[in-house]
Amino acid sequence: MADNKKMVEDITSMDVDFAQWYTDVVRKAELIDYTSVKGCMVIKPAGYAIWELIQRQLDDRFKETGVENVYLPMFIPESLLEKEKDHVEGFAPEVAWVTQGGLEPLQEKLCVRPTSETLFCDFYKNDIQSYRDLPKVYNQWCSVVRWEKETRPFLRSREFLWQEGHTAHATAEDAEARTIQMLNVYAAFCEEVLAIPVLKGQKTEKEKFAGAEATYTIEALMHDGKALQSGTSHNFGDGFAKAFGIQFTDKDNTLKYVHQTSWGVTTRLIGAIIMVHGDNDGLVLPPRVAPIQVCIVPIQQKKEGVLDKAYELRDRLKGIARVKVDDTDKTPGYKFAEAEMRGYPIRVEIGPKDIEAGKCVIVRRDTREKTEVALTDLESKVPELLDQIQHEMLERARTHRDEHTYVAKDYEEFKKIFSEKSGFVKAMWCGDRACEDKIKEDLSVTSRCMPFDQETLSDVCVCCGKPAKKMVYWGRAY
Amino acid sequence: MADNKKMVEDITSMDVDFAQWYTDVVRKAELIDYTSVKGCMVIKPAGYAIWELIQRQLDDRFKETGVENVYLPMFIPESLLEKEKDHVEGFAPEVAWVTQGGLEPLQEKLCVRPTSETLFCDFYKNDIQSYRDLPKVYNQWCSVVRWEKETRPFLRSREFLWQEGHTAHATAEDAEARTIQMLNVYAAFCEEVLAIPVLKGQKTEKEKFAGAEATYTIEALMHDGKALQSGTSHNFGDGFAKAFGIQFTDKDNTLKYVHQTSWGVTTRLIGAIIMVHGDNDGLVLPPRVAPIQVCIVPIQQKKEGVLDKAYELRDRLKGIARVKVDDTDKTPGYKFAEAEMRGYPIRVEIGPKDIEAGKCVIVRRDTREKTEVALTDLESKVPELLDQIQHEMLERARTHRDEHTYVAKDYEEFKKIFSEKSGFVKAMWCGDRACEDKIKEDLSVTSRCMPFDQETLSDVCVCCGKPAKKMVYWGRAY
Repeated sequence: MADNKKMVEDITSMDVDFAQWYTDVVRKAELIDYTSVKGCMVIKPAGYAIWELIQRQLDDRFKETGVENVYLPMFIPESLLEKEKDHVEGFAPEVAWVTQGGLEPLQEKLCVRPTSETLFCDFYKNDIQSYRDLPKVYNQWCSVVRWEKETRPFLRSREFLWQEGHTAHATAEDAEARTIQMLNVYAAFCEEVLAIPVLKGQKTEKEKFAGAEATYTIEALMHDGKALQSGTSHNFGDGFAKAFGIQFTDKDNTLKYVHQTSWGVTTRLIGAIIMVHGDNDGLVLPPRVAPIQVCIVPIQQKKEGVLDKAYELRDRLKGIARVKVDDTDKTPGYKFAEAEMRGYPIRVEIGPKDIEAGKCVIVRRDTREKTEVALTDLESKVPELLDQIQHEMLERARTHRDEHTYVAKDYEEFKKIFSEKSGFVKAMWCGDRACEDKIKEDLSVTSRCMPFDQETLSDVCVCCGKPAKKMVYWGRAY
Repeated sequence: MADNKKMVEDITSMDVDFAQWYTDVVRKAELIDYTSVKGCMVIKPAGYAIWELIQRQLDDRFKETGVENVYLPMFIPESLLEKEKDHVEGFAPEVAWVTQGGLEPLQEKLCVRPTSETLFCDFYKNDIQSYRDLPKVYNQWCSVVRWEKETRPFLRSREFLWQEGHTAHATAEDAEARTIQMLNVYAAFCEEVLAIPVLKGQKTEKEKFAGAEATYTIEALMHDGKALQSGTSHNFGDGFAKAFGIQFTDKDNTLKYVHQTSWGVTTRLIGAIIMVHGDNDGLVLPPRVAPIQVCIVPIQQKKEGVLDKAYELRDRLKGIARVKVDDTDKTPGYKFAEAEMRGYPIRVEIGPKDIEAGKCVIVRRDTREKTEVALTDLESKVPELLDQIQHEMLERARTHRDEHTYVAKDYEEFKKIFSEKSGFVKAMWCGDRACEDKIKEDLSVTSRCMPFDQETLSDVCVCCGKPAKKMVYWGRAY
């Protein structure tokens, strides 16, 4: 038992130091490794398999709404990046520049895409001629680069994986509808697949995307009470279309500018899974994104028939769940600790006595609850339990979020909450950037979103006392 | 009918100018578009969907052999690239260099990965300690950059998509076995999924990968008689391990160097599909990589019941095949031409008279063969026909390859064949690079591979007349 104790002792308690706990889990669960390339990470098999499950399920949901996948170049010529003024101002300070190709200097330097609005515009400019060519609802899965100074695995790194959807529409209404539709796809995906409840709303002017008319966001609450922006959807209106000259001949035979959107989620979602569901023994994966859903641990595996029975159970569960047998030569205790660290939703223990009694022990990762199950019931019990775990993980996360959501009616109360507690604070806002700036300055707190579900908590801004325009969720954010 | 004539007329005949035919098909079938980024292309939905089918099916085959997917950074510090001497000499002339990150120059320049051997070595150096950590059988799907001067869609571009597998093993035998295993996976995939027969063999010293001990290749013959290297698998021995210091403690408690392999295929495979199967009316897709397998074209679609019947047939075929209805307002003739251009394996025509007679017309893209099929038989007939098309496309390609494979016993004969014909030439070789150089100089012909299936055609080298060591397949290559 020394081994498994050691494994757990190596993790800092989340109550002592949440940031260190996070880093420990990410390493001990073998999700990532650091590299010689500063600010870039290796996503190891256990981490990448989660991303593949996210990709597969999100991509299916995209395609149900008519999204088509494409691939655009990773390089953006400087002159192209500069075409939309707000956009270049937002991104130029944090891009990586290629200045040499082969043995020669480039005539025009190329940035490695930090996002691909400008490339899609350049492409759409030629690809769209008529209303018949609309809408374009394209998406790509790729990596992007932003030259961040401070980096953290999954949350902020110089290169990260994501999908970026870029659409073009005939009317402003169509663009707005697609922007909201994709936000809803993200929200449903987070709740149904990642078991993470999210707030849906609009970003303030200050917080919106460089070049967007409106940015919508889904915001999740981590276990430590900090907010994580988990996905965004932008409506560009015809701003990019005008900058790039993307026009089409409409049914009435007049030339019009298209209306555009973009929307993306990243490997940051893996960070959200860790920080919403994890505990002091490691990762806790929601079944729908768990690369291994059931880990069978044979007890006294050297005794005749034990390993064979474990393999038999695995074979019976194949096609029902993602299952593996831990048949390594480690001790059962070590295997239990490792299965917990890696967040496998269900552990099945099977030893000689169990076999004799025709049963096994099933242990839930999320609640540690142990149940004896007749071996004959395994095929019905496992999927039922996986569904139950998925459902209860979402409900626990929702309860945690709701219990850490507060209301502040004046600035004293607002400051008091943020000095004593950690979570979302709902408060009214006048709409002025000055108040956002002051709140950030005073408390390192930012507006997370103006939720679609507005409430009137009071008539005045929580900060300046002037008439309120919007209810805002505020928080400290990753 | 003017429209569809025009569409076909826009394609250069492959007998007149194969290169132009290729470019025309790639554009007209909407597989790619050019971009403002020289040498880089947009892969459009119809092209990317083929890549997704390749990815999905190849990835499944990888995983059956124990491959795990990961993701490594896209940047390689200059000092890392330089660690293995042959490797850096091979790649340095054709890499793109990032010299600036954000607003500041980098202390060490980074190249955009042209391939990731060095990054995997840097990673394995820390990740591998003991024989228990072996083998590592990792793969990544990503894009790579090589600063080519001359580019052609799918065949050679500055950025392209690929997978790169990188493995580490305890023994030389294990590494060699994995190298051959993956070559066999590629060969089976090309034949069974892409309907492209390939030669399997080893590259000569001159043609092998920079840093490899041995490079194995699959070589396919295009319709114009040129060869296309379609996938490679490299055995590095312990060369990289020694350059990077990748050691492990073996069972006997001694420190040993690992043995490594790498293997990859690229979006070039899409070029192979086009050039092996295409014809003067456009693309011809093997069913297993056809994003649309069945295109239903309603005839007189404005007549009552026609479109409804087309949708009904589509719904019946869903789950059996990838199917769509062309319900646009184009003429049937135009729709036929477009379906041919895009290479859909089966076209189903359904009009009022067909509906009355309870039948439809099925047209094969590959042979143009038309069959009347009772509507009640559709669910059984379509998958049967797709299988038949898949099978016959492979056999036709094999026949074409075999009919364009020649034997030369002396240099006169060798030169005569290459001046009159186009294809593979089997001939004996002494093993000296000088003969390869002369043959390239004289005829622009290169050694494609030393096939696993060796034959003794004569005792002497086809070029110099000295004793022969190997039979080689020679050809002009893309």
